[in-house]
Amino acid sequence: MNIDQQLEIISRGVDEILPLDEFKEKLKTGKPLKVKAGFDPTAPDLHLGHTVLINKLKQLQNLGHEIYFVVGDFTAMIGDPAGKSATRVPLSKKQVLENAKTYQTQIFKILDKKKTNVVFNSNWLNKLSSADMVKLAAKQTVARMLERDDFSKRYQNNQPISIHEFLYPLLQGYDSVALESDLELGGSDQKFNLLMGRELQKNYGKSMQAILTMPILEGLDGVAKMLKSLNNYIGIDDPPDAMFGKIMSISDNLMWRYFELLSFKPLQEIKDLKKQMAAGKNPRDIKFILAEEMIARFYNADETKQAQQNFINQFSKNKIPDNIPEFEFLSGIKIANALKDADLVASTSDGYRMIKQGAVKLDGKKIENKEFKVISGIYQVGKRKFAKISII
Amino acid sequence: MNIDQQLEIISRGVDEILPLDEFKEKLKTGKPLKVKAGFDPTAPDLHLGHTVLINKLKQLQNLGHEIYFVVGDFTAMIGDPAGKSATRVPLSKKQVLENAKTYQTQIFKILDKKKTNVVFNSNWLNKLSSADMVKLAAKQTVARMLERDDFSKRYQNNQPISIHEFLYPLLQGYDSVALESDLELGGSDQKFNLLMGRELQKNYGKSMQAILTMPILEGLDGVAKMLKSLNNYIGIDDPPDAMFGKIMSISDNLMWRYFELLSFKPLQEIKDLKKQMAAGKNPRDIKFILAEEMIARFYNADETKQAQQNFINQFSKNKIPDNIPEFEFLSGIKIANALKDADLVASTSDGYRMIKQGAVKLDGKKIENKEFKVISGIYQVGKRKFAKISII
Repeated sequence: MNIDQQLEIISRGVDEILPLDEFKEKLKTGKPLKVKAGFDPTAPDLHLGHTVLINKLKQLQNLGHEIYFVVGDFTAMIGDPAGKSATRVPLSKKQVLENAKTYQTQIFKILDKKKTNVVFNSNWLNKLSSADMVKLAAKQTVARMLERDDFSKRYQNNQPISIHEFLYPLLQGYDSVALESDLELGGSDQKFNLLMGRELQKNYGKSMQAILTMPILEGLDGVAKMLKSLNNYIGIDDPPDAMFGKIMSISDNLMWRYFELLSFKPLQEIKDLKKQMAAGKNPRDIKFILAEEMIARFYNADETKQAQQNFINQFSKNKIPDNIPEFEFLSGIKIANALKDADLVASTSDGYRMIKQGAVKLDGKKIENKEFKVISGIYQVGKRKFAKISII
Repeated sequence: MNIDQQLEIISRGVDEILPLDEFKEKLKTGKPLKVKAGFDPTAPDLHLGHTVLINKLKQLQNLGHEIYFVVGDFTAMIGDPAGKSATRVPLSKKQVLENAKTYQTQIFKILDKKKTNVVFNSNWLNKLSSADMVKLAAKQTVARMLERDDFSKRYQNNQPISIHEFLYPLLQGYDSVALESDLELGGSDQKFNLLMGRELQKNYGKSMQAILTMPILEGLDGVAKMLKSLNNYIGIDDPPDAMFGKIMSISDNLMWRYFELLSFKPLQEIKDLKKQMAAGKNPRDIKFILAEEMIARFYNADETKQAQQNFINQFSKNKIPDNIPEFEFLSGIKIANALKDADLVASTSDGYRMIKQGAVKLDGKKIENKEFKVISGIYQVGKRKFAKISII
């Protein structure tokens, strides 16, 4: 495949490739590129948001490049030594290895296991002496670090920044020095860190990596970043039925975004689908196409077909009336409040009681968490009361 | 000796003791205190400016406390890895040991060798792992570091601060953690770093040291800090004659400052000398007393006496006329310009020529460096031309 064809595949859906000229030069050498992507082993459950990046790695792998999946176990094992964030608990070596294993079984649903190098950054970071750390810290300035968006905001708002937080981007950047990577991939929110790797390679007399950033995928609500903690995610370990139902629940706009960032279908095919919808095709049927592709990525053909059939059966079984009242909500509304505002219950406390009794369903599935924030879908209370809720 | 008597000796000439209450409590325990003072082995030539601190260590040693002389070889061996300062060249282990040895022969002219612990901070700092370094860096915030005067000025003036520069105060502070020091001594310009040691001890669950800062001694010019690079210093390895001549050259005001910070004479005795001068005693004779004490600190009684005799002989031999013109100069004036302004030469180039010919003397001693900045004293060009210059 020539450079332009490669570049077309690699460029699809990306936020930025920097510097593009240098990256082209690297491709022109014809040698397989060392492609680096770093992952934090603290949260091992991958969702479709993560796969935006992993899909890109897959495309690069298909083009013959070498994938280095860097597990950031060094920092995970330190945790947050300042103890300011509850989310940064230090992990034991054993936990890290377990998480990394879980990670691998998940990513190898997409990437080719035999062609993927899984490496742990503690391998080289633990070997740095205290003097090496001082030398590493000398490679960047305080002002440069304070350019990073989150640091600059915290500094301006007088929120404390511990000095070790300045070391983490340097250590992640040092991974590129140790790996001698040619290209590093990350989310668009990682741009600063990826550039740090590039600068450090220069400082250590290595050839500089190009960087490729991918957009951040929105969650099911279509608004916030897909995050497990926001409960707006589709896990790649989700069973086929759940995955199918979740995809069917997204808005039509979000569907096109998912086509762009998650589907491997040629761009022309996606354009044709858009035309069909404009010409009157039921969006539900186009969502079926997306759902099928996603589920087929993680399950076999039979399981995929069965998931679709289950979805259809459940809907017909639930006998949703043809004309049900429609409501629009902003995202983030609690289920009990939404039920009340949609006239499905008399009061929020009535709503909580119905949830407790198991009488509240979303797209035919019981809602059991009373803290659930509404997403788009058909809500049902008891046998007779229905409402269609759309998140705007 | 009771606490108050100890405290009177310890407090003499100090800038601050912080927190004084805690320090008193430490003294009250009656146990010998671990007293830390850090020295940078990059510039091994000590001068009287350094002895302000060493004298205080000597007083503490005399009171039975344990002196830890910490050689900062860890950072000296790294040097300035950012390569921005020419003065921070990394030293080899061998060089550091040589410098440290030179240091010791010098400090043991004042301190008791047998009772002084000379320790190298590489002993514990080299043992820190990369993870330990991250944990250490987590103990302080960026904002706290930017409170340090020099950092804050550089940041405001957009002058780069490398991140490793934030690590140095932490590493020096960690010395206090490793040593478990009860008191740390330093110049008043070191207050931030000394407090850092105190805070880190708390962070590492150790008992916190008190800090004691000494004022910075002015050099022979009476204005700038005594520094080798400013050529305004009295080296403790200076021969007796040079030391005597240099002390005799200082202004009367500076003489009292030196009495305060360098002399071990009881404060009452110094008060009496001041009264005598007010009553008409020749300041030269009081300067003799100071010069004698200083030289006797580093040389024996015969050498001291001989230095004074040589000084007197030289002056009478030089037959300085009784009434010579007097001039006042600001500090920092180059010798050639001063000679011209004092009518000793016709032009600055004439001045340079006379210096080259060895025809220019200060207090009877040839000036050979044409970059020399004038200090107070009797200047002579050739056989007949004299001028008394005072720095104001």
